[in-house]
Amino acid sequence: MIITVQMVLNCLIEPVGHLEPTVDTLKSGRLNGEVRKVAVVFMATYAVIKQAVESGVDLILTHEPTYYNHKDEVDWLAGDPVYERKRRLIEESGISIFRLHDYVHTYKPDGILVGMLKKLEWESYAKPGEMNLLSFPPDEQHTVRTIVTHLKNKLGIDNMLVAGDLEMPVRRFGLMPGASGGRSHINYFERTDIDLLIVGETNEWETNEYVRDAADMGLSKALIVTGHQISEEAGMLTVVEMVREAFPDLQVDLIASPLAVKNI
Amino acid sequence: MIITVQMVLNCLIEPVGHLEPTVDTLKSGRLNGEVRKVAVVFMATYAVIKQAVESGVDLILTHEPTYYNHKDEVDWLAGDPVYERKRRLIEESGISIFRLHDYVHTYKPDGILVGMLKKLEWESYAKPGEMNLLSFPPDEQHTVRTIVTHLKNKLGIDNMLVAGDLEMPVRRFGLMPGASGGRSHINYFERTDIDLLIVGETNEWETNEYVRDAADMGLSKALIVTGHQISEEAGMLTVVEMVREAFPDLQVDLIASPLAVKNI
Repeated sequence: MIITVQMVLNCLIEPVGHLEPTVDTLKSGRLNGEVRKVAVVFMATYAVIKQAVESGVDLILTHEPTYYNHKDEVDWLAGDPVYERKRRLIEESGISIFRLHDYVHTYKPDGILVGMLKKLEWESYAKPGEMNLLSFPPDEQHTVRTIVTHLKNKLGIDNMLVAGDLEMPVRRFGLMPGASGGRSHINYFERTDIDLLIVGETNEWETNEYVRDAADMGLSKALIVTGHQISEEAGMLTVVEMVREAFPDLQVDLIASPLAVKNI
Repeated sequence: MIITVQMVLNCLIEPVGHLEPTVDTLKSGRLNGEVRKVAVVFMATYAVIKQAVESGVDLILTHEPTYYNHKDEVDWLAGDPVYERKRRLIEESGISIFRLHDYVHTYKPDGILVGMLKKLEWESYAKPGEMNLLSFPPDEQHTVRTIVTHLKNKLGIDNMLVAGDLEMPVRRFGLMPGASGGRSHINYFERTDIDLLIVGETNEWETNEYVRDAADMGLSKALIVTGHQISEEAGMLTVVEMVREAFPDLQVDLIASPLAVKNI
């Protein structure tokens, strides 16, 4: 049986039905193109696309955009040497690229969140029905610092940003991978009365300043910012598993990337 | 002569005339209130406001918002314990808070940029008429790494984020304090053909990924992200100087803050 791009996408769209509007569109390639090998990635970087093309991948499923903006608008990039070279690589290779962002976050529960909970071995701490709200059992003692250490070990990173007191005990906390925005973070603090929120990325003048103020008021609030990529990349393993299960004959692998920036 | 809030604001608005729309509004206090002591700050944090009130400051001029969002909208924060406590401190103290963001960036040249160039001792490198475009003279040899070291020394920070090759020679570079956005950063790279861009804050999926791709293509492009506060705070010294000059009898000081997040 020939497997097409459309068939793989149908499998990924099926759990929620068609979303409209959505940024999850085919960025290149053809819906009726044949697929034998799939690469699942956090970001379709130039290096990732090159590696995928060279290893015979037909379809890339990427969580984040290809062209440096959420909607993958390209008019403003016309003539830019980085954009033009990337576009040429993609077009000449004929590879299909589909963004899988809104769908995977709309799964119940959120596919990225589930993948990250697995990676962090925190599934048992998550509240059923609201899995980004976590609680430690009464016999476990944790502080912001012990959680930082756990995140470093499990995610393989050397540093992260922290607001609040590192020695503060943590009982209830939130896990919000990605960059859902200041209002989303702050409303979550208010609604759930958590001690600690772990996020991927913030705008500095929003969540960071809210938690700074809270801590300076003596409230038990802290924030960990891990970086966006590291907060979601392992979550895409959910997608790897889905496609492998639906299409056992396909070769499906996650291509992880180094971080775009180094902490110097 | 009594100096009022309105008189101080007039002096700050005068160089560009009234802007509309603008986020630069009086967040608290009264335009006809008397001013004897002014605090100039990057961010009107809870700790900064408390310190200002205790030291008899009548007017805070803050570059960034008071309530964790660009427009200082507060309806969505009603009942939030952090917001309510901050609002109460401000209201009970009677202190005036004015945001000075759009005006200072609209000065010709940009007041924040000028303040940062002074702090970095880079005024002589800046292109007249386009002062965020800088070039080293032919007899000076610099790399991304030597510039990182310079920034650390001058700004008093221990770390920053870097995309691209640390050993890459740098001749032309851009300085864009704050968080002007991915399109602004990327268009600047394209238009000016700089080797290096130094910014305050990015969205990770935008500027960071553009520079990662450029470097992976072998192009001579690099990015330094210093953090938003550190990229603009010293720029507010421009405002301190303006108010001191216009009102020699006023006490006017910059209150610097520690960073909201620590790198752990």
